[in-house]
Amino acid sequence: MTRFRFLSFLTDYGLEDGFVAACHGVAARIAPHAAVIDVTHLVPPGDIRRGAAVLAQTVPYLPPAVHVAVVDPGVGTARRGVAVAAGDSVFVGPDNGLFSWAVTAAGGAARAFSLTNRALWLADVTATFHGRDIFMPVAAQLAGGAELTAAGTEIDVEDLVTLPAPERRIRDSVAEGEVLTVDRFGNLQLTITTSDAAQIGLRPGATAHIRAGGHRLTVPYREMFGAVAPGELVAYADSAGLVAIAVNGGNAAQRLGLPPGAKVSMVAASPTIRP
Amino acid sequence: MTRFRFLSFLTDYGLEDGFVAACHGVAARIAPHAAVIDVTHLVPPGDIRRGAAVLAQTVPYLPPAVHVAVVDPGVGTARRGVAVAAGDSVFVGPDNGLFSWAVTAAGGAARAFSLTNRALWLADVTATFHGRDIFMPVAAQLAGGAELTAAGTEIDVEDLVTLPAPERRIRDSVAEGEVLTVDRFGNLQLTITTSDAAQIGLRPGATAHIRAGGHRLTVPYREMFGAVAPGELVAYADSAGLVAIAVNGGNAAQRLGLPPGAKVSMVAASPTIRP
Amino acid sequence: MTRFRFLSFLTDYGLEDGFVAACHGVAARIAPHAAVIDVTHLVPPGDIRRGAAVLAQTVPYLPPAVHVAVVDPGVGTARRGVAVAAGDSVFVGPDNGLFSWAVTAAGGAARAFSLTNRALWLADVTATFHGRDIFMPVAAQLAGGAELTAAGTEIDVEDLVTLPAPERRIRDSVAEGEVLTVDRFGNLQLTITTSDAAQIGLRPGATAHIRAGGHRLTVPYREMFGAVAPGELVAYADSAGLVAIAVNGGNAAQRLGLPPGAKVSMVAASPTIRP
Repeated sequence: MTRFRFLSFLTDYGLEDGFVAACHGVAARIAPHAAVIDVTHLVPPGDIRRGAAVLAQTVPYLPPAVHVAVVDPGVGTARRGVAVAAGDSVFVGPDNGLFSWAVTAAGGAARAFSLTNRALWLADVTATFHGRDIFMPVAAQLAGGAELTAAGTEIDVEDLVTLPAPERRIRDSVAEGEVLTVDRFGNLQLTITTSDAAQIGLRPGATAHIRAGGHRLTVPYREMFGAVAPGELVAYADSAGLVAIAVNGGNAAQRLGLPPGAKVSMVAASPTIRP
Repeated sequence: MTRFRFLSFLTDYGLEDGFVAACHGVAARIAPHAAVIDVTHLVPPGDIRRGAAVLAQTVPYLPPAVHVAVVDPGVGTARRGVAVAAGDSVFVGPDNGLFSWAVTAAGGAARAFSLTNRALWLADVTATFHGRDIFMPVAAQLAGGAELTAAGTEIDVEDLVTLPAPERRIRDSVAEGEVLTVDRFGNLQLTITTSDAAQIGLRPGATAHIRAGGHRLTVPYREMFGAVAPGELVAYADSAGLVAIAVNGGNAAQRLGLPPGAKVSMVAASPTIRP
Repeated sequence: MTRFRFLSFLTDYGLEDGFVAACHGVAARIAPHAAVIDVTHLVPPGDIRRGAAVLAQTVPYLPPAVHVAVVDPGVGTARRGVAVAAGDSVFVGPDNGLFSWAVTAAGGAARAFSLTNRALWLADVTATFHGRDIFMPVAAQLAGGAELTAAGTEIDVEDLVTLPAPERRIRDSVAEGEVLTVDRFGNLQLTITTSDAAQIGLRPGATAHIRAGGHRLTVPYREMFGAVAPGELVAYADSAGLVAIAVNGGNAAQRLGLPPGAKVSMVAASPTIRP
């Protein structure tokens, strides 16, 4: 009985080696009916937080699937592998917090299993390539109809490793957060949500005072970066429901020199003070 | 009723974020039967001309499909989204000229529709990610059997935005044009066609005098770059029917320092003058 | 009659042009039922040896397939195209040694054919894009049910071009080899196998003396790079059965400055001399 028509796959394996393809091959051998949607394989090596952010923002748009995610600097050490049911999907990978944000986005963990049933693994397991030897084989078995309970020992969902939620808070009328990710276009996605912005009186059309790095910026807050002239800075409500800082037609990360993790605070400009 | 078994997808989204995957996911949810052929997602950000050239050269080799193309620096502004029927395919994306050359290659626009029917979009549409929220959902609906007429208001195909055709002309016995694209290997693809070359008496086996940038070059014109010794410059008839300049086993773009848009002129070397 | 449900595809075409997609399109037109597994398209331009290593290490994990591999600096010259049956798969591409290691990994060549039957090619064949015009069309025809004997003239498998096997030897108690590949993480994969290591008394848990470049290193030999502290050098048994040198959480290739081809020798540290 087929349970899932789709697998998704996120790693830090890169695209220049055969690592991703070997995993695709393992999936095709075990579950030839299943299509693999590659989320990205260009997570910076070992950057669990970046992988978690990309996965959490992408999963809501994917079909029901077994989501395989492997950013796994601890491969071969004591960290366990897990399969976690959440919403209409299952997440498979290392228990290091990588998919904790995506699980939350999918409605929270319903059940979790430690991958202890070697019958679902490849016959030969290496110490350094669990994506190929354990995670993808288990995921493909689940896609092909194996019961989640066959994956191994059930564990308490409270025992799953979780990443701390992205830092953000509202103090008086100031929204504080940090740069969560920088995308290909150099747009700075903040941990501050558009709801946070609304709560401090910042709605599209208004002006924001922003402190970030050594910068003090006064920028328009709009629904889209295209609302300002090319080359201008703008804060906007991005496609993931977060506030982002962009340069229309340019690269805000380069212009401002702000990496992921940089602290940012925002306040709505008072029309009476700055008309 | 299924109308298309394939979608194709070209963007400037890059591969390090989850943008492409979110669109693949939307397609899989709406039209799980359809396979997506990725054309490229590494168009330089906002470079409509580069996207147009790659798409036009690739589409003739793709199966009948809904071709989704999104290089969209004007996302969220007044530019409209369109669906254009051409040949046995449909093109969906921003009406900014991006697929005008591919539409021509496919036989010209037969009908065109402005994407005004929100019933085919995602329920929540952001201002900055129309690939995910509008273009891919509409394309997947069309692949799944929706009539093209359901996409929105029909518009005159003459009103579609088109890119000016690549510059090229023949004056006396000189072919003039420019660098259209530079590929991964550093080969300089010119806007000058192999027919233009034939018209000025340049056929494989002959020698060409070329002016480009500050260079005056005398190079063999061959059917393939492999016809000259490694490290040698050569002009040849490339796989898209255009004249290209290469270094066999090397990188012509680096050696000559010529970017896309650089002016190039060619003339056949006279055997009586240069035997 | 369908013979193969999968094609695999390895090239040096890169991902920024439409070359890979044009080949996918050709496959989809001829064999719409077949799924294409991309091995990698980021082989450095013309680097046959690198392509051969990636393919040989990936193919054992792929399903039965027609494997198309194109790293083809001699395209358009006298080198022939071939189809080679090995194990439960068929390899299609230039006869330049590119898939010789993979064929060995698949059990050795059973039969080989020179691609002389133009009926299986595209109608128009360019001199520089045989991946699109010859190799993929032939492969898709084979996937769709064409007999291997229809590909062209049978040739002696002994006449296939083969790459010399990666250099390695054991002399006294010293294992000598070279750097075979450098992966995305900067791990140095050696031509020395884990069996070689065992033969010179080097088993996980032991210590190795390594000479490479100008370096003389004493490093732990472990089952995984995660067995040493972050930032530490380690030799380990990698996922392809070869000895690799890594920096846990770091980049060994950068730290040691060793490119593919660099000579390496190893010996087990004597516990009596270095307790």
